Amino acid sequence: MRAAYYEGHGSIHVAECVPVSPGPGQVQLRVADCGICGTDLHIYHGNMDHRVKMPQVIGHETSAVVEALGDRVSGYRKVDRVTVMPLDPCHDCPACRAGHSHICQNLQFIGIDVPGGFQALWTVPAHTLLPVPERVSIEHAALIEPIAVACHDVRMGEVKSGEFAMVLGGGPIGTLVALVARNAGARVVVSEVNPFRLKLIKSLGLEAVNPLETDLIKFVNGETGNAGADVVFEVSGAAPAALQMTDLLRARGRVVMVAVYAKPVPVNLHRFFWRELRLIGARVYEREDFAEAIKLLDARTVPFEKLITGICPLDKLKQGFEEMEQGGAAMKILIDCAS
Amino acid sequence: MRAAYYEGHGSIHVAECVPVSPGPGQVQLRVADCGICGTDLHIYHGNMDHRVKMPQVIGHETSAVVEALGDRVSGYRKVDRVTVMPLDPCHDCPACRAGHSHICQNLQFIGIDVPGGFQALWTVPAHTLLPVPERVSIEHAALIEPIAVACHDVRMGEVKSGEFAMVLGGGPIGTLVALVARNAGARVVVSEVNPFRLKLIKSLGLEAVNPLETDLIKFVNGETGNAGADVVFEVSGAAPAALQMTDLLRARGRVVMVAVYAKPVPVNLHRFFWRELRLIGARVYEREDFAEAIKLLDARTVPFEKLITGICPLDKLKQGFEEMEQGGAAMKILIDCAS
Repeated sequence: MRAAYYEGHGSIHVAECVPVSPGPGQVQLRVADCGICGTDLHIYHGNMDHRVKMPQVIGHETSAVVEALGDRVSGYRKVDRVTVMPLDPCHDCPACRAGHSHICQNLQFIGIDVPGGFQALWTVPAHTLLPVPERVSIEHAALIEPIAVACHDVRMGEVKSGEFAMVLGGGPIGTLVALVARNAGARVVVSEVNPFRLKLIKSLGLEAVNPLETDLIKFVNGETGNAGADVVFEVSGAAPAALQMTDLLRARGRVVMVAVYAKPVPVNLHRFFWRELRLIGARVYEREDFAEAIKLLDARTVPFEKLITGICPLDKLKQGFEEMEQGGAAMKILIDCAS
Repeated sequence: MRAAYYEGHGSIHVAECVPVSPGPGQVQLRVADCGICGTDLHIYHGNMDHRVKMPQVIGHETSAVVEALGDRVSGYRKVDRVTVMPLDPCHDCPACRAGHSHICQNLQFIGIDVPGGFQALWTVPAHTLLPVPERVSIEHAALIEPIAVACHDVRMGEVKSGEFAMVLGGGPIGTLVALVARNAGARVVVSEVNPFRLKLIKSLGLEAVNPLETDLIKFVNGETGNAGADVVFEVSGAAPAALQMTDLLRARGRVVMVAVYAKPVPVNLHRFFWRELRLIGARVYEREDFAEAIKLLDARTVPFEKLITGICPLDKLKQGFEEMEQGGAAMKILIDCAS
């Protein structure tokens, strides 16, 4: 069988590999689809070499079918359709003991710290699996992981029906956050500069503005009777957004920090004080977010599948990475690991 | 009668003035004591000249007795002992309408935007008054306003019994926050560089460390089994504290932003994401915080009065300002406005 190996900055290639037999508590999966995540691009660019052992099979947005069970695994049978919540916490650190095992201080993230889903046969701990409902297609099931991120972000932001939410950055996660927040009853406006993404976001029935053309502060104040937004999701990771986010919020408004900032950036702490704002860090997901993502996808009321702009075979993973990062006509690209 | 007028950077002087008769809904007070606040020092240094009309009587940490009532004022009699919650909101802006009138978007802060308490006879809206309990001395009652700030900060930080709290900055507000948080059942450690203040803080039975001598991150990790603090109160307003505060916190820990930052400073947003931290802006107080402050002072279980390091007559206000800002052997200085 074959796997795609990251081997250092800009280098990823597909090679034959020997499948890992499932040990006790493990399950071997036949991977169906695996989405390309922004984190995969960070790894591809060498930005996470301090953490990623090379050569490493990366990828963590997966759908799969069960191929083989290790000892002491129950509740699954061969050919069951599943997705993977790719977190393997230590259950012993202060974060785990406080009930926050998803942000375990010794977390093994499957697809970063240990081998991931860009391969045909993949062995993972059984506790990471969740079943995929019958009427969700196996391609769409590869969206469950990023939808779970969005469910976590919206839950952490405590978005309520009737609220006004701004999403800064309309890439795949920003757009999913917007869809989940709208589904929670909020009015949602996405700020994004890429014309293709703006068009795609609007085609989902969402409002979208280009911050290079629209003064966001004037826009939000105009739309909210000079109150400001109830909640801002900062998904762009751009320093100007970090500086501006505080000016978009109402008294006691919340900003959910979804983006990954490589280094400290200037933040208007005075505005936090002045309007009693709240900043809420939100990372990955908990089991309930995965359950919510599966429920939403199964309900078919939110057009998540429209984010998929391409499906490539495993051989074309490098091209998929390049298409994603050119930022042109791509939103979510899936890799068909069975092909 | 006399009043102290701020007349521009470094200039404050005491002069005769004509008392303002109380209009409808107003009360004329005979001011007893008025504490010098950090905000008064900011004004004195010209940093708030965009907001303060000159000449202006400043001061807002007051105790007083009722002198005369305007029309349509009930519930108070001459010689009643009172303190003043110096906020006059518009009740019409989005913040007021959302129930956050203490951070009204058009707030008149009494003692900044309109005349304050550094005068013998002071006319204020009746709605700002709260009665001082019988066994609280009139000098100590001048501490109610800053204690209310601390009560608000601790309430916003949701401090729970058994938690570990770090207070960055042991000036008057930081020390009051520490006392109120300890009274809520937390273990509290104050970080402060001024030797006089360190000694005073320790004399209150609080733990205190000098961050120039103690590595705060190592200290907190060592004391918490590598978890981090539950809550950090950033009261110093120093850029290095804003950068360090995120490294002191446990997973899902909270930082309460009490300090006033004149401009944006670098913040480690990645750490907010990584540990799912929360930043909570906290400004002034609500009526319940004043009520809590009065209750705490009346209970006599917290040694608030030990913060008072000097009482000066109104004539010596300028010297009081200078003593405060030299940062030597001063914590809270009260001005006896009756003398």
